[in-house]
Amino acid sequence: MRSFEVKNRTSADDVTRLRLITAIKTPYLPDGRFDLEAYDDLVNMQIINGADGIIVGGTTGEGQLMSWDEHIMLIGHTVNCFGGKVKVIGNTGSNSTREAIHATEQGFAVGMHAALHINPYYGKTSLEGLISHFDCVLSMGPTIIYNVPSRTGQDIPPRVILTLSRSANLAGVKECMGNDRIKQYTSNGIVVWSGNDDQCHDARWGYGATGVISVTSNLVPGLMQELMFGGRNPALNAKLIPLMDWLFCEPNPIGLNTALAQLGVIRPVFRLPYVPLPLQKRIEFVNLVKDIGREHFVGEKDVEVLDDEDFILVGRY
Amino acid sequence: MRSFEVKNRTSADDVTRLRLITAIKTPYLPDGRFDLEAYDDLVNMQIINGADGIIVGGTTGEGQLMSWDEHIMLIGHTVNCFGGKVKVIGNTGSNSTREAIHATEQGFAVGMHAALHINPYYGKTSLEGLISHFDCVLSMGPTIIYNVPSRTGQDIPPRVILTLSRSANLAGVKECMGNDRIKQYTSNGIVVWSGNDDQCHDARWGYGATGVISVTSNLVPGLMQELMFGGRNPALNAKLIPLMDWLFCEPNPIGLNTALAQLGVIRPVFRLPYVPLPLQKRIEFVNLVKDIGREHFVGEKDVEVLDDEDFILVGRY
Amino acid sequence: MRSFEVKNRTSADDVTRLRLITAIKTPYLPDGRFDLEAYDDLVNMQIINGADGIIVGGTTGEGQLMSWDEHIMLIGHTVNCFGGKVKVIGNTGSNSTREAIHATEQGFAVGMHAALHINPYYGKTSLEGLISHFDCVLSMGPTIIYNVPSRTGQDIPPRVILTLSRSANLAGVKECMGNDRIKQYTSNGIVVWSGNDDQCHDARWGYGATGVISVTSNLVPGLMQELMFGGRNPALNAKLIPLMDWLFCEPNPIGLNTALAQLGVIRPVFRLPYVPLPLQKRIEFVNLVKDIGREHFVGEKDVEVLDDEDFILVGRY
Amino acid sequence: MRSFEVKNRTSADDVTRLRLITAIKTPYLPDGRFDLEAYDDLVNMQIINGADGIIVGGTTGEGQLMSWDEHIMLIGHTVNCFGGKVKVIGNTGSNSTREAIHATEQGFAVGMHAALHINPYYGKTSLEGLISHFDCVLSMGPTIIYNVPSRTGQDIPPRVILTLSRSANLAGVKECMGNDRIKQYTSNGIVVWSGNDDQCHDARWGYGATGVISVTSNLVPGLMQELMFGGRNPALNAKLIPLMDWLFCEPNPIGLNTALAQLGVIRPVFRLPYVPLPLQKRIEFVNLVKDIGREHFVGEKDVEVLDDEDFILVGRY
Repeated sequence: MRSFEVKNRTSADDVTRLRLITAIKTPYLPDGRFDLEAYDDLVNMQIINGADGIIVGGTTGEGQLMSWDEHIMLIGHTVNCFGGKVKVIGNTGSNSTREAIHATEQGFAVGMHAALHINPYYGKTSLEGLISHFDCVLSMGPTIIYNVPSRTGQDIPPRVILTLSRSANLAGVKECMGNDRIKQYTSNGIVVWSGNDDQCHDARWGYGATGVISVTSNLVPGLMQELMFGGRNPALNAKLIPLMDWLFCEPNPIGLNTALAQLGVIRPVFRLPYVPLPLQKRIEFVNLVKDIGREHFVGEKDVEVLDDEDFILVGRY
Repeated sequence: MRSFEVKNRTSADDVTRLRLITAIKTPYLPDGRFDLEAYDDLVNMQIINGADGIIVGGTTGEGQLMSWDEHIMLIGHTVNCFGGKVKVIGNTGSNSTREAIHATEQGFAVGMHAALHINPYYGKTSLEGLISHFDCVLSMGPTIIYNVPSRTGQDIPPRVILTLSRSANLAGVKECMGNDRIKQYTSNGIVVWSGNDDQCHDARWGYGATGVISVTSNLVPGLMQELMFGGRNPALNAKLIPLMDWLFCEPNPIGLNTALAQLGVIRPVFRLPYVPLPLQKRIEFVNLVKDIGREHFVGEKDVEVLDDEDFILVGRY
Repeated sequence: MRSFEVKNRTSADDVTRLRLITAIKTPYLPDGRFDLEAYDDLVNMQIINGADGIIVGGTTGEGQLMSWDEHIMLIGHTVNCFGGKVKVIGNTGSNSTREAIHATEQGFAVGMHAALHINPYYGKTSLEGLISHFDCVLSMGPTIIYNVPSRTGQDIPPRVILTLSRSANLAGVKECMGNDRIKQYTSNGIVVWSGNDDQCHDARWGYGATGVISVTSNLVPGLMQELMFGGRNPALNAKLIPLMDWLFCEPNPIGLNTALAQLGVIRPVFRLPYVPLPLQKRIEFVNLVKDIGREHFVGEKDVEVLDDEDFILVGRY
Repeated sequence: MRSFEVKNRTSADDVTRLRLITAIKTPYLPDGRFDLEAYDDLVNMQIINGADGIIVGGTTGEGQLMSWDEHIMLIGHTVNCFGGKVKVIGNTGSNSTREAIHATEQGFAVGMHAALHINPYYGKTSLEGLISHFDCVLSMGPTIIYNVPSRTGQDIPPRVILTLSRSANLAGVKECMGNDRIKQYTSNGIVVWSGNDDQCHDARWGYGATGVISVTSNLVPGLMQELMFGGRNPALNAKLIPLMDWLFCEPNPIGLNTALAQLGVIRPVFRLPYVPLPLQKRIEFVNLVKDIGREHFVGEKDVEVLDDEDFILVGRY
């Protein structure tokens, strides 16, 4: 079920050159459907501020809370409206091989430039099973493998990555196991993006990482662009660390969702099981924005604390 | 769930100017999935030969045999690859208002230029129910209403169309009730496309129709373009009538599927409940191609009769 | 994917003995989900008043407005709670052969006693396609074929039924083409249920029909039981005709939905594209109930006219 | 969307008395669909050998590889055929609150006696989010919470369980964090099932656990019944430990799937990402069966090693 139209031809090489990839937030309407207007604004702010690529429906974008038809629709929408300006990487991974196959096939059909693939979380499998899983989807197009044992309960060891790297479609790895692991890959010619914002400066400038797949760049895309393109900058990195610590005080994207609502760029709507950070943390965020400078953050409105009642939590949507 | 990006802005006016709209065939792989390579070829042949628009997943394209995610994916694919060259009209109608709402919202989100909407077939409803049904989707974007009582079991009477025509999004009507009905609309400033290939010449040149939404143009796009753009041409019309009679000897798209397989532009794969025309009819088609001229038909291969065993019928896919 | 557990063994013979089968209404909560409490009450009233079988998710039960998972869930629920007291016939037909296969397989897996199958409405197909379609599902278990050209746009001719009747699983036909057609079948040993309430008395007592698959029995199950089991009774039939005329003044189940809401046995919630009958018709219904006798109708509350604002119409659910 | 029919009334108390609950294997046909005949046999062997309950579509039963409609269908099938003999606990948990709500509602509607709920794996959430997630489903019926941080990446701490235990629907906890954690709960009157087969003997007889939710009982139900009901039996426990070690040498259910195929009670069909254990391990299993005694294992056939080519791995189904 492949298409060879020009518009559907992307090479893994094109993907390896992306340095700042934002795992974009998916905003919602009060009834839980996508808020495409707000989404378009978020994407445009990434493009204007220098992001090279976006991940659609990653864990940050809450792909795990989407039905597949919503997910593919969002990929198709993003490609159609922004595909000429930014690379669109669809998170079409799944712990079910069937679903990963189906979604990846559809994602490439609607024009995504690359797929992000996770190992089978929760269900898990053997290393041989892992390889079989990835083999089913690697042939479909440029692919980034995502390793995040703190979510999946299972590390993808280097020998699996080395096996998969024989495929011309493996663009690289989004790695959360730290900079030593990254070094191990980059020394062997494997492209890596840091999956940890607080390590990405060092990863980029000290361990050979190509760049970052970032959550923080949803908030301060320009500063993250500077961090990835502007050369070593420990001062900027240090300035951002408190924001990153705040962002990840609870499982992502809880912090991000709360922050974007406080910045007035999305409606304060959460799909459960995510709930906003508590009041004290929201006050902290306002102070962080002041410290770093409102002008570096997305949006134009004043940052607000918001009351508990301002938030809408939706379970059925 | 609307997007106002430039790429998602189409006006009903743009749609009213389309004259030759092809209800494009969806080709399949032997396991029943979409054959996107063959599909891309079919669409390109339409563009090269002058079609202005295509209907994706109409009854001809067997939208009724698709899951909605397949359907929306195909719309998104078509927009992404061909949306700059041809208007893409998604058949996001349904006899379920919920499904029509959901599909239309998604279709516009992935960039379709207009929606085709059918009245609730099979389940049917009252005239008031009809209006409520269409009202739910008309606000979403440019819309063509499709009236085909021989399939739906229920005529959409002019007073319903007149009521709906108050919406700026109503681009027009695809009408199968004959040229007098068409005249009734065009005299009142309502745009109409003929839904019957054998009446479309007269509809266009004698009854005010803007053009046709055609099945036959899948086979002979250039001749249908001539018929719609080249002025009155009873000779050409008469030449095509035997082909049209053959095409509709059984419910569409049985004839079309058979013909495209014989022309070698699609694999001879049918999703049930469609089955190929019998041998005798396939022999007739070869003769029709010779009479009209192979060069007017899509594809480059010799037209073949094909054996019964050449066809693959799939029920699970 | 078959099961041979005792609970899953039903014979077509068991099905042929059912005389009063009610195409049961599906009631809704204000948000459009199923109202299972009200549903259970409706089913219990059928059982108490002598119905032998129920159709789950027929056109009356608005299967066309259900997702398949809802539909199969409702079949499973009905089997689990009531399967020992009434035969449960799932409407697992579709105009898509794939969907019919999938739903029928699942319906038998959750214990339904028989399947109701429609010919491919809207999409239609050739007679050979019809046979292929039904052949895909007949092997799965006892089957009733449903012929209603006013909805499907295509008559299932006797020669198709005769071909299918070679299968031991064909329990019989639900026929809406009138009593002469019924006679043609019953003379040839084919079991038939009338699909038209206003013809079912004559069908049963004059044309050999086994019984009826009824809409009216949702309202007056006891009287319909009498009509089917109590011998010729033209007086009772005549008494019911005005009610039947009222019920079908608009496409079913518009009248039925309105009536059940007026009787207070369901909430006045409509899934679009269905909308309630207008005020004048609702007043007529109150008079019909008085004429026939409130005690013959389901429920205990006074029949009410209801205001337009009492009704809730849902498009997203 | 609740039903109060007798058949749908189960109390959490009924659930707390179950001692041996088997997380039942889901067997497949060569095309990847469910093999219901084999499934029915597996369930019957559990009933005959004394299991009190079964988990349908747990991680062992590969719920993570099912579509929800398959999953609910399997629950409905199990209730219909076996619900009078064994308690049916549907794993209707999900990392998406929406999916958990929808599946749990449907599972109870088709008659399951209790729900098994996992915390949001992979996506994760805050403790407050956890409580909100479980609160959405606890009201629907008897519930077992499942804690398995090695799969979910996140421990459910005792304070969350204590909060949830205020609900009369919380039957108890399936706990994998070891026997000290179990003791902490059972000392506080919270019912616990061990989620680790190798710890369940001690959990039951030394730490207050009610019983076990077991994988091993798929293979040797009678011995596991003895272990849970027959009093302290360190000898039997010791005899089973090598089998348990073998079973979990790779992520479950890889070992179980391989073993059941070798015992001839299921077809050797794997849904990816699961693949069979390698030859050496399969030889070990044959020896384990001999050591423990073939008569204690399910099935009647000789245990076989099987060749690599005997296994069928399916990615599309």
